[in-house]
Amino acid sequence: MEKNLVPISRTEDIGLDDACGRVLAESIVANIDVPPFDRSAMDGYAVRAEDTYEASQSAPIRLKVVEILQAEESSSKSVAKGGCIQLSTGCKIPDGADSVLMYENTEKEGEEILIYKPVHPGENVSKRGSDLRMGETVLREGEPLNPARIGVLSALGISHVRVYDKPSVAVIPTGSELTEVGSPLSGTKVYDINTHTLVSIVKDSGGIPVRFDIVPDERDEMKRALGKALASDLVILTGGSSVGERDLIYSVLADEGQILFHGIQVKPGKPTLGALVGKRIVLGMPGHPTSCLSNAYLFLIPILRKLARLPERKMPRLKAKLARRVVSTLGRRVFLTVKLVDQEAMPVFKESSAITSMAEADGYIVIPENVDTLEKGDLVDIYLFS
Amino acid sequence: MEKNLVPISRTEDIGLDDACGRVLAESIVANIDVPPFDRSAMDGYAVRAEDTYEASQSAPIRLKVVEILQAEESSSKSVAKGGCIQLSTGCKIPDGADSVLMYENTEKEGEEILIYKPVHPGENVSKRGSDLRMGETVLREGEPLNPARIGVLSALGISHVRVYDKPSVAVIPTGSELTEVGSPLSGTKVYDINTHTLVSIVKDSGGIPVRFDIVPDERDEMKRALGKALASDLVILTGGSSVGERDLIYSVLADEGQILFHGIQVKPGKPTLGALVGKRIVLGMPGHPTSCLSNAYLFLIPILRKLARLPERKMPRLKAKLARRVVSTLGRRVFLTVKLVDQEAMPVFKESSAITSMAEADGYIVIPENVDTLEKGDLVDIYLFS
Repeated sequence: MEKNLVPISRTEDIGLDDACGRVLAESIVANIDVPPFDRSAMDGYAVRAEDTYEASQSAPIRLKVVEILQAEESSSKSVAKGGCIQLSTGCKIPDGADSVLMYENTEKEGEEILIYKPVHPGENVSKRGSDLRMGETVLREGEPLNPARIGVLSALGISHVRVYDKPSVAVIPTGSELTEVGSPLSGTKVYDINTHTLVSIVKDSGGIPVRFDIVPDERDEMKRALGKALASDLVILTGGSSVGERDLIYSVLADEGQILFHGIQVKPGKPTLGALVGKRIVLGMPGHPTSCLSNAYLFLIPILRKLARLPERKMPRLKAKLARRVVSTLGRRVFLTVKLVDQEAMPVFKESSAITSMAEADGYIVIPENVDTLEKGDLVDIYLFS
Repeated sequence: MEKNLVPISRTEDIGLDDACGRVLAESIVANIDVPPFDRSAMDGYAVRAEDTYEASQSAPIRLKVVEILQAEESSSKSVAKGGCIQLSTGCKIPDGADSVLMYENTEKEGEEILIYKPVHPGENVSKRGSDLRMGETVLREGEPLNPARIGVLSALGISHVRVYDKPSVAVIPTGSELTEVGSPLSGTKVYDINTHTLVSIVKDSGGIPVRFDIVPDERDEMKRALGKALASDLVILTGGSSVGERDLIYSVLADEGQILFHGIQVKPGKPTLGALVGKRIVLGMPGHPTSCLSNAYLFLIPILRKLARLPERKMPRLKAKLARRVVSTLGRRVFLTVKLVDQEAMPVFKESSAITSMAEADGYIVIPENVDTLEKGDLVDIYLFS
């Protein structure tokens, strides 16, 4: 499976303000120094540090203010012995000066200042290139862009970057019993739930969902939809809550490609089926809405993020005591939805087909295959839904 | 401040597949039962439970299979004493039957089955309305939509929902020393960083950024931009790394409205300034890029989420030992960026103006106002950047 999961290699240019959350497809080498000059980090006086060494509260030193600069101004004068230039944070340090005295440690008297405390060379100066140095690789191919990295690009004046494409993900609902939302229900039909939960998950995990119409449980129609879906980077078939439906999906995927895995035994629900058709990974997700969604959290999201070259998802977590005893199933990983009640984790699972088990939950806990019981009061890690 | 922070009340209709992450502006009452009929939760035989009570491994009971149904089919027949109907998961339970026997506990012999284990009434049946009951309020106004709640809407066949608008957020960069990315740098200008980091934060926190051109440090131009910006739901002015610039922003906001707060003393950087101009909250964020971004994480995101009616942000966190001693500043909350090195939190702060302090970090720790030193090895909570 791992070796068939090929991260996206297509790339696109994107504007800086749309780049947060995307993954860099190029390394960024600083083309300028940042700051581009020695810059004052304080409002104060640019001085030669050595002129201040003897200063003290009892014996202040006097310097002459030869110029006053505003924030964006720079000086054509230079600071000579006994002189200083008043400037603001961000100003270029004038020639001759090597440090900046804060107002707090000075007193003004006419055109002179009294200095009560020495500064050392470089004090309150942001040296040219101290943040980003020209020629230095400051961001690396493969790094996901977050607000701070967007800041690094901005600092270099870069308005567009090359990022990896978002993976496209075909979502094919299967099942003759399904009706699309918005249409009236008739007979023994039920609404298609999984397409919409999966589309939400795909978008949230850096993918572009490509929605297919509902495919009835017929071999030829399934093959036709699958053929079209192979244009996407990942294909998800969902359906098969009954053995017959599952067998059909299995047999279509085995016919058209090669079954790679049956996923991990998860409760609730059947494991996700994985196949390789052509060069595409095709996932057969279980039909029951809660099984589909729990498999999505456990398996689909990690796969999607690998395709998108995003790092493993860090879900917000919370430790809490279990509000009641839970009997699990040896040999199956259990995905148990819980609600926080009085700061305790209260299991809210109803049955695999009940979407409310999920909608009412604050998050889920995962009980490993080798654990058969959790006691009331046991400390559990809750993965919080957003 | 709190009382002036009015959550968005405008609403819009949105398609189900775009609704994840949005906040419901209406309560959802189930207009159908889900499941809409008593439904089989298993592949097996629909039976009258009482017909099976005497069944055991040694004395199996025989029932006649009167019909075989596919997934989407329903039966016009009813199950009478001594009979059963074979069906798939999801099938409507035929009249007369009250439970479903799993294949595993039966054996087929021609048109009959042998039953080795009794079932109780309701076993393996998802009762009509057991997931969602018609007339029940299943989602409430104000609830943020996540994949599972999208699933609830789908289960009811709802294709569009009414959600609250995303708040629009004007971002006004101020500073005569700023140059927009993409343009060449000249003289002692530097690139505008904060606009782009703030735009990224706003988008990520459920807002719609409205970018303004760079405004020089001039009262009239600032007032003009502010006037236009009041059309947005929130206004952010960024700039003012020098006292003169800060004074100007303060004085413009005091002229045009009313200063509400000066924020909390945060290190690095100056606190965020808050004003009320007309009915709009206007935030003056510090000019130094790291100060601006740390104030954004600490104050802007919570404000944005309140406006957007989103719950408090749950950031993924990690506990780690501090890799070295950190001396903090009493009376100021310290926002300290850290990198994970050998599973320890290594502080990476350089200086307020250095965006690399943030870009190289894996996250940040917050040192409260009343703590002056953290020792090497102290356990800290890292809020992880995405």
